[in-house]
Amino acid sequence: MISEHKTADVSFESLLRIFTIPEGPDSTLTTIEEKLSRNLNQFLREHIVAEEKPLRDIEKDFSNASIPEQPQFVSDHTQHLLDTLVSHSVHTSAPSFIGHMTSALPYFLMPLSKIMIALNQNLVKIETSKAFTPLERQVLGMLHRLIYAQDDPFYNQWMHSANHSLGAFCSGGTIANITALWVARNNALKADGDFKGVEKEGLFKAMKHYGYEGLAVLVSERGHYSLKKAADVLGIGQEGLVAVKTDNRNRICPQALAEKITQLKAQNIKPFAVIGVAGTTETGNIDPLKEIAQICQSEACHFHVDAAWGGATLMSNNYRHLLDGIELADSVTIDAHKQLYIPMGAGMVLFKRPDAMKSIEHHAQYILRKGSKDLGSHTLEGSRSGMAMLVYAAMHIISRPGYELLIDQSIEKAKYFADHIEQQPDFELVSDPELCLLTYRYLPEHIREALEKSQGKETEELNELLNELTKFVQKRQRETGKSFVSRTRLNPSRWGYLNTIVFRVVLANPLTSRDILSTVLEEQREIVKQAPNLIAKIEKLAQHVIAKSN
Amino acid sequence: MISEHKTADVSFESLLRIFTIPEGPDSTLTTIEEKLSRNLNQFLREHIVAEEKPLRDIEKDFSNASIPEQPQFVSDHTQHLLDTLVSHSVHTSAPSFIGHMTSALPYFLMPLSKIMIALNQNLVKIETSKAFTPLERQVLGMLHRLIYAQDDPFYNQWMHSANHSLGAFCSGGTIANITALWVARNNALKADGDFKGVEKEGLFKAMKHYGYEGLAVLVSERGHYSLKKAADVLGIGQEGLVAVKTDNRNRICPQALAEKITQLKAQNIKPFAVIGVAGTTETGNIDPLKEIAQICQSEACHFHVDAAWGGATLMSNNYRHLLDGIELADSVTIDAHKQLYIPMGAGMVLFKRPDAMKSIEHHAQYILRKGSKDLGSHTLEGSRSGMAMLVYAAMHIISRPGYELLIDQSIEKAKYFADHIEQQPDFELVSDPELCLLTYRYLPEHIREALEKSQGKETEELNELLNELTKFVQKRQRETGKSFVSRTRLNPSRWGYLNTIVFRVVLANPLTSRDILSTVLEEQREIVKQAPNLIAKIEKLAQHVIAKSN
Repeated sequence: MISEHKTADVSFESLLRIFTIPEGPDSTLTTIEEKLSRNLNQFLREHIVAEEKPLRDIEKDFSNASIPEQPQFVSDHTQHLLDTLVSHSVHTSAPSFIGHMTSALPYFLMPLSKIMIALNQNLVKIETSKAFTPLERQVLGMLHRLIYAQDDPFYNQWMHSANHSLGAFCSGGTIANITALWVARNNALKADGDFKGVEKEGLFKAMKHYGYEGLAVLVSERGHYSLKKAADVLGIGQEGLVAVKTDNRNRICPQALAEKITQLKAQNIKPFAVIGVAGTTETGNIDPLKEIAQICQSEACHFHVDAAWGGATLMSNNYRHLLDGIELADSVTIDAHKQLYIPMGAGMVLFKRPDAMKSIEHHAQYILRKGSKDLGSHTLEGSRSGMAMLVYAAMHIISRPGYELLIDQSIEKAKYFADHIEQQPDFELVSDPELCLLTYRYLPEHIREALEKSQGKETEELNELLNELTKFVQKRQRETGKSFVSRTRLNPSRWGYLNTIVFRVVLANPLTSRDILSTVLEEQREIVKQAPNLIAKIEKLAQHVIAKSN
Repeated sequence: MISEHKTADVSFESLLRIFTIPEGPDSTLTTIEEKLSRNLNQFLREHIVAEEKPLRDIEKDFSNASIPEQPQFVSDHTQHLLDTLVSHSVHTSAPSFIGHMTSALPYFLMPLSKIMIALNQNLVKIETSKAFTPLERQVLGMLHRLIYAQDDPFYNQWMHSANHSLGAFCSGGTIANITALWVARNNALKADGDFKGVEKEGLFKAMKHYGYEGLAVLVSERGHYSLKKAADVLGIGQEGLVAVKTDNRNRICPQALAEKITQLKAQNIKPFAVIGVAGTTETGNIDPLKEIAQICQSEACHFHVDAAWGGATLMSNNYRHLLDGIELADSVTIDAHKQLYIPMGAGMVLFKRPDAMKSIEHHAQYILRKGSKDLGSHTLEGSRSGMAMLVYAAMHIISRPGYELLIDQSIEKAKYFADHIEQQPDFELVSDPELCLLTYRYLPEHIREALEKSQGKETEELNELLNELTKFVQKRQRETGKSFVSRTRLNPSRWGYLNTIVFRVVLANPLTSRDILSTVLEEQREIVKQAPNLIAKIEKLAQHVIAKSN
């Protein structure tokens, strides 16, 4: 066991070795780590099997629920991990894998991650994190300033203030959104007269005290699925998350929002928060934030912006105007593990007012004492790692202008690809990119013509066949393992809001070249040929429609 | 910028380099990483400054809220991190730092962490995690089996079932506890007739439907502070978390629990969950789980065990009997980043019944489709990293008997230290160890005698002076940086339940030797001498009490 000696015994001495003696320079694990450090892409190319193994078969390798009674040598286990786990993991950083929001990572973050993990700080309190606490507060300050652009005296006063907090670092956007809505809910149902506040007395008494029949959070119908989860957890109920209709570019209609609020109030339902989306998950569109802010101001309603994906756009002076109005939000979610190129597990929520989080502040005897600067008194999570260090390092090494370049090239690449798709006779661009996301599908000109001329049931039928084809192509392309686009379902106005399955592309990886984009289309054309029966059905129906219309 | 070339420019070419070209073999970052890999303890000893710098001074290094406009060279920034961050971080793995629940890490986890981070999988869905999904399900299965000991057919049927879940991997114990109570709340207020369930309609309507006046979760007065946070988030309110009194070993009194439940029901308050603590944070005591289970069964109440700290004890066949009754729990929290020696950020909650999590299941269009095996449909968090890989590797390389040895030696070391303290004429053991935690304070025999003989105000006064001394010693010892114990406040019955500040010691680091323990006491004796005024006051009051009593 434990380091690579030929005795697989379990003695206390051998156990101590794993805490004191590193793997030798020639050990399997060291060799692998070195290869990975020298050339990550090559390592992944060599070790990740391209062709997809069926999940059922992979599961066979992970079917034993017993904790082993025999220790394994580190070298043997490392080989086992390479064979069963690494080989069947997803090559998220491959430039041809353009279906995810997870892309390549800067190299310097890998050794820094190791240092962060070796330090094993716990950010819940100063006593187990020391300098990591002010560092995390600074990172939150930097993101706060990126959004709200307050002046130096503001940050000097609040950034390190024990009883205030500019936000919370958390494991991801979901926890960030829950935190924002938690704060908003507690501020909306705060202590008042005899009532001690929802945090103390709970939601039932709060509702009775305030005399509401219900609570509501409003968001466009394109809001992230996790918001339903947030509404459930917070006791508002999924039905309390009210979907507002969007325009044909997936952006909330302010008029519809205002009307919904009026309707809710007429039913004595309190709309305590509105969420603006800055970068929808499916198409990367941005709500009209200024207009939402105006409505929230006049309704005294918390305005939260879910910029988990799009927030990084603020780094670009050329494109930050797309998010105009975000500075009017009461709170904003940004995921650093998306377009800030940080490894998985780095979400943040920022609050405009340094005292906003008072409504969720908590203390205890042995930890988070009042007046302490312990970060844990303002976070939903307890023990947390020092991930903020990686954001801090990336901010310094890449710098704002560096991020600007990355953001700009992503958006421009998406625009290029959109144009390119539009020039193809056999593809249809379904949503054009506002950020670096776009959607499209395989739709040859004569089929498009048929779809346009078709009516009623025939339209639906033809569309359904096309959906099947899109699904087939996406799945086969993923399984083949050379490239990857994701898929989703949209309801484009130009096709009468029919359920339309589309390829979804996220172009955040700076290594994705124009050649790769062409190859992705080429590959999809080839895969189409592998569905002759489906194509025959489509052609037949299309001919029928055209013949009828002439 | 960006790799170590002498041009600190921001061009797209230089940006591409950070995604494609690793730091050179002679770079500062590579050198540092290598040193750390060769000898972690030496690296930390060399780089972490022993003597504590005041937080206010550290904050000066982290005071700029502007995102840099100039990129920094990786080498320069690495040096900056060493000087400002690493040097003032906490040496959590030092064998003389015995105040935390964070201890040393096995060496092999460091290179494995780097591989995990480089793979950058997202466990929310199969498409971005592939083999990591079955791996995480297996890890959950292993922990489930450790607790519930079901047979092979059970795990064959449920471990990889798309519509079931044996638990959730999460960032830590707090999220694990919230998840358990979320499930319990939703099961207690489930769909019924016209009512669509609390998850859909929210807490207010649920309470009206079921006709309750309130909800309650019961836990001993020694329950973790995060449970209050959970009660707040879930809309129950902190007052809905009802504290039940404990015996003189910090264990919940089952009789008092049963009485509280009866009282609550008489007020039409629904006690929907009881939490048993398996390893209190302050003293490591374990509630009588079997007796709690019986009460929960007869009350049809969800029984959750918070074994964030103590759960790992199940690995030891010699001590797992301490947690007898845990197998009767409906859900259990275990933190792998505590006594399973995994880096920060590895919590888990396990559910006895594979369908328990149905009540929080969620789906969406483009992700977590029904019937998919995506882990995200049963987790509070969304995007998550592949931390489960580290638990999996440690289970295989250390194995159950290896963990048994680690657990056994921790408990036995704590027993040794307790005996050792009791033999000292100038220290008082305040709580003896059930697991590897104990508390004590500096209390020379003649002062103890005075404290015993004192009455009323004089007892309080003397005790208060002793509290001041304990605080002083703990703080000075931490600041000096040679060793570290934490402190907390207890109310020992032998001192009439007076607020008593004590040193708190957690002996989980296998490298902590008996010599180190003696040195910790030695150092404390020396520090006492640095408080001559306080000692003089204590001596004077003690003499006065003794004189009066004779």
